Amino acid sequence: MDITIKLKSGTSIPNDRLIIAGPCAVESYEQLLMIAKFIKSKGANVLRGGAYKPRTSPYSFQGMKEEGLEVFKSVKKEVGIPIVTELMDARDLDKIYDVADIIQIGSRNMHNFSLLTEVGKQDKPVLLKRGMSATIKEWINAAEYIAVEGNTNIIMCERGIRTYNDYTRNTLDLAAVPIIKKETGLPVIVDPSHGTGIKELVKPMSLASFAAGADGIMVEVHPEPEKALSDGPQSLTFDEFEDVVESLNK
Amino acid sequence: MDITIKLKSGTSIPNDRLIIAGPCAVESYEQLLMIAKFIKSKGANVLRGGAYKPRTSPYSFQGMKEEGLEVFKSVKKEVGIPIVTELMDARDLDKIYDVADIIQIGSRNMHNFSLLTEVGKQDKPVLLKRGMSATIKEWINAAEYIAVEGNTNIIMCERGIRTYNDYTRNTLDLAAVPIIKKETGLPVIVDPSHGTGIKELVKPMSLASFAAGADGIMVEVHPEPEKALSDGPQSLTFDEFEDVVESLNK
Amino acid sequence: MDITIKLKSGTSIPNDRLIIAGPCAVESYEQLLMIAKFIKSKGANVLRGGAYKPRTSPYSFQGMKEEGLEVFKSVKKEVGIPIVTELMDARDLDKIYDVADIIQIGSRNMHNFSLLTEVGKQDKPVLLKRGMSATIKEWINAAEYIAVEGNTNIIMCERGIRTYNDYTRNTLDLAAVPIIKKETGLPVIVDPSHGTGIKELVKPMSLASFAAGADGIMVEVHPEPEKALSDGPQSLTFDEFEDVVESLNK
Amino acid sequence: MDITIKLKSGTSIPNDRLIIAGPCAVESYEQLLMIAKFIKSKGANVLRGGAYKPRTSPYSFQGMKEEGLEVFKSVKKEVGIPIVTELMDARDLDKIYDVADIIQIGSRNMHNFSLLTEVGKQDKPVLLKRGMSATIKEWINAAEYIAVEGNTNIIMCERGIRTYNDYTRNTLDLAAVPIIKKETGLPVIVDPSHGTGIKELVKPMSLASFAAGADGIMVEVHPEPEKALSDGPQSLTFDEFEDVVESLNK
Repeated sequence: MDITIKLKSGTSIPNDRLIIAGPCAVESYEQLLMIAKFIKSKGANVLRGGAYKPRTSPYSFQGMKEEGLEVFKSVKKEVGIPIVTELMDARDLDKIYDVADIIQIGSRNMHNFSLLTEVGKQDKPVLLKRGMSATIKEWINAAEYIAVEGNTNIIMCERGIRTYNDYTRNTLDLAAVPIIKKETGLPVIVDPSHGTGIKELVKPMSLASFAAGADGIMVEVHPEPEKALSDGPQSLTFDEFEDVVESLNK
Repeated sequence: MDITIKLKSGTSIPNDRLIIAGPCAVESYEQLLMIAKFIKSKGANVLRGGAYKPRTSPYSFQGMKEEGLEVFKSVKKEVGIPIVTELMDARDLDKIYDVADIIQIGSRNMHNFSLLTEVGKQDKPVLLKRGMSATIKEWINAAEYIAVEGNTNIIMCERGIRTYNDYTRNTLDLAAVPIIKKETGLPVIVDPSHGTGIKELVKPMSLASFAAGADGIMVEVHPEPEKALSDGPQSLTFDEFEDVVESLNK
Repeated sequence: MDITIKLKSGTSIPNDRLIIAGPCAVESYEQLLMIAKFIKSKGANVLRGGAYKPRTSPYSFQGMKEEGLEVFKSVKKEVGIPIVTELMDARDLDKIYDVADIIQIGSRNMHNFSLLTEVGKQDKPVLLKRGMSATIKEWINAAEYIAVEGNTNIIMCERGIRTYNDYTRNTLDLAAVPIIKKETGLPVIVDPSHGTGIKELVKPMSLASFAAGADGIMVEVHPEPEKALSDGPQSLTFDEFEDVVESLNK
Repeated sequence: MDITIKLKSGTSIPNDRLIIAGPCAVESYEQLLMIAKFIKSKGANVLRGGAYKPRTSPYSFQGMKEEGLEVFKSVKKEVGIPIVTELMDARDLDKIYDVADIIQIGSRNMHNFSLLTEVGKQDKPVLLKRGMSATIKEWINAAEYIAVEGNTNIIMCERGIRTYNDYTRNTLDLAAVPIIKKETGLPVIVDPSHGTGIKELVKPMSLASFAAGADGIMVEVHPEPEKALSDGPQSLTFDEFEDVVESLNK
């Protein structure tokens, strides 16, 4: 299967598979630069990272915001890798548009219909994460909110749903991969980092995602996961990321 | 128990219980006027209704929007009843603020942190519905996002959570009532219309809500539920609403 | 509403409501006697307690088994109160039948169809707890397995369903009360002890259960909950039980 | 990875992977014979089929029972393939033991502790399906109930858990595969037929299962799924089964 994500720049991501990697949150220029260089050298084709972070508590780190976007710009210039970052508020659209090659709609906003409508009017790809308790139908309808405005450049991202199954952070629903492909024809990627919340599960779930027909994965990578400002337990070290990519190459 | 919801107008809702009623969506001036007069005459103290409607599909009726707000203004003037209506987009805040006595944050936006922050800066009460799969902690954290900005005039609304239990639209979690009261001290109301999706269950669940310690209920009322543009099956007729209120009075 | 549970002895429980109380597990003759006397004096009309306990781990206390049944017999003789206890294995039927006035089928066995068939052939009432993730339809079908064998003397017991909502042990589904009554015509009781797992919630949920139309409640009572061999955190002390009953009487 | 399931006969299943296939229910000698020959010729190493069927409604087909076991015996003799079939009631143990090479404990009985104890005393492998809403810990504890009696010849079978996600019959939790392998060291297989309820999903989910580290799969195969007495929509035709096996071989 060959998917092509057309970027605004005229270029495209011409790979047979999408490997999106990066930290949960942008923490500093040095951090992002080091990660970007490393993941690119190992075959990742998109850099992820949150400048604006939706956190359950208002007292948690909320991201570097505008400053984080500036970091993204510098790193992108230096490393030359497309960027995906999350839009949480329609009023931030111009700022996000300015730096992101792919605009992410996070799980908590999958039902934020005015935000969906707004990205539907843009000429950049949208990465649409599944809502934390969204049914297949609701997720497809969210994509429809984007598409109806004219933007059909949508990447669907399975990231697990919430259940009583408490060993993992969420229950990764890999059956959604062939279902969404069949029902929408859109590219589908999987986020095993959020989908499980446990870094040891990222490799087997990445392999399983591709076996189920996924077009890509999105994983969290951090040079020192134990010092990450968010999502440390599910972030891969550099060595672990390399190991995941090598397993996929086999 | 005596709760007082202080309104911006200087008045307050000095009742021992809150009965919020009205249609799912504002459909016309005549409709809303008729409903407002009726529910007020039966003891309701707040009129509810959606001008902007968050609908799963972009092809469903999305509400009368600005026109619906105008209808609200006229009806409010004529009948003299406070109004609660939903804010879905921070950019609509001025318009909603202008007509609403209580600003509603719907289930789908309980995790929309920028919207929560925005209503946290207002001087009007906020009705915060529980997210469709929110844990107690997440729901309290959402209230915290509002309170941290200075607005502690928050009414918590239990409206059922999503489960595999498919007889009802959602699973109404009445244990949340005493839990939220204990954990936050905030007034708690229950929406048995969305919580069950079945109008025959509105009466027993309203009685159970008050028995569990709720400060109020929010129910959908429509003169002709079978013709409602949304949520017909869970809307009470006028006679049914009267019956619910009379049961509560006993 | 007036429900009558006909007992094998020819007598019946002629109350307008069923209050079933007792320890999670029978722990000793002294314990059960003290509890039985107390709860009877406060208005309970059935004594509950487990002789055989279904425990998640094989290393947890599994109940006093035959010895527990002997304790039941002695206490029943001395105090004169009907007994409900759980049957976990069809091969124990004779022993359970010998002492129980009401045979309980627990949540974990709601789908144990051969056990249901067996109690369907008995001439004693069956208390059928809802399965931990049973839909309404499956629960009714389980009752049907009993009824089809001839025994329609069935009491349905809502005890909460499993969800991601982790503040409480289960999510008590009180809407099930009017639904089951309408769909089956059978008496319905609620177990707020297992339904919430938190003793402070037993009182508001008991009140809410009756308000929703329940015919009774089943609660755990222990003289020293902190020393209980199982389910301590959800067991009421004697004072707390008295308070619940007094609240119901108002 | 190389797993070996030791059979009572002294032989073992020396394959690098377990492929268990067969009809949901045994329907006739001719049916089972045809299926057994076919699946064996394509590489399946165990024949599955229900003689006793746990059905939600007492009015549904309950299996051929003893007659079904006779059919199994004849087919086994003729085709020479080990058999797995479900034990639902401890009182049927001798009959099931007589014909089954592997004794299955179904989802609905994962919490039937007296049944687990019983198979724990046997000298034949046990296939333990995950309960329909079992957590990882509960499932492992169920295995512990078997192992503590001396039988550690246990095969764990992930078959999906119950969620609100209604496109599929259950939500297949493939992350459970590496988790159970790590936590218990036991062989783990996946049942994508029950896990999804949709035959088109059996192939991608089978591939994903092995990619996640599973030791085998268990799938439903029927010569004419549309005429199957149960689970038709999730049963593979012969051609579809062949296609699944060929994909696995690549």
